[in-house]
Amino acid sequence: MGELEGWMYQRLVDDSPEATVVADAEGVIQYWNASAETLFGHSAAEAVGKTLDLIIPEPQRQRHWAGYREVMRSGQTRYGRDLLAVPALHKDGARLSIEFHVVLLRDATGRITAIAALIRDVTARWERDRALQHRLRALEADLATSGATREEGAP
Amino acid sequence: MGELEGWMYQRLVDDSPEATVVADAEGVIQYWNASAETLFGHSAAEAVGKTLDLIIPEPQRQRHWAGYREVMRSGQTRYGRDLLAVPALHKDGARLSIEFHVVLLRDATGRITAIAALIRDVTARWERDRALQHRLRALEADLATSGATREEGAP
Repeated sequence: MGELEGWMYQRLVDDSPEATVVADAEGVIQYWNASAETLFGHSAAEAVGKTLDLIIPEPQRQRHWAGYREVMRSGQTRYGRDLLAVPALHKDGARLSIEFHVVLLRDATGRITAIAALIRDVTARWERDRALQHRLRALEADLATSGATREEGAP
Repeated sequence: MGELEGWMYQRLVDDSPEATVVADAEGVIQYWNASAETLFGHSAAEAVGKTLDLIIPEPQRQRHWAGYREVMRSGQTRYGRDLLAVPALHKDGARLSIEFHVVLLRDATGRITAIAALIRDVTARWERDRALQHRLRALEADLATSGATREEGAP
């Protein structure tokens, strides 16, 4: 990997532009970097000690915790490589579209002591994609209508 | 921010699914995590000690180094918040589309000793977007033709 001094690792996480949230085995938030403050609106002081329900919309909670317990039980997750795309909640109630990877933090015995999520806000990209898809469908509909007009509309 | 143990910061960077590359003030690679190995094809042993030209296509090099020197001189970068999208090179010669943020690593005196890049491979997404844009333009052209046919083609 090459060598970095210890402070550099901490700086890379504290100052990461990716919102970084670490929660313990029970899903209680232990760490919340500056980008997480910006993304979700809660300060670190407000977030640390709360459960992840702080940012999970109510309809997604049951599924989230089933997945979380399963990762803790099995020691496996596919979201180390694959991005998990989910809705999330800003402090002001706004709904966000986020994507995240997880990193499992294991102690020297191999036991998972915490799960970190590296989170990106993709709300803007999703809205652009939706607008593009909408335009595509509108054009396809126009074209179908136009074709129909040509076929049926000859005087 | 809450508290993490020192080993957790290192684990978060070493095991990050984002390719993480740290280069010193002269642009010599100091650190290259496992995801950087996967993304670019070079092992850490191959990359550390080389300059960033390792992954920069020739036509982009001059612009890259002008920007790099300017960041070192000014101590400022807008790519801490904004994503910089650029082409990059895989070891096998394939062209990648990457997006990255940078984190400036300053020592206790405030001097920038290194620059870290947190890099995502967006090749697949760019190809999807290009395909979608292509389909959109094709539909717009079809619709224009179809409209023209209707207007001009009445018997």
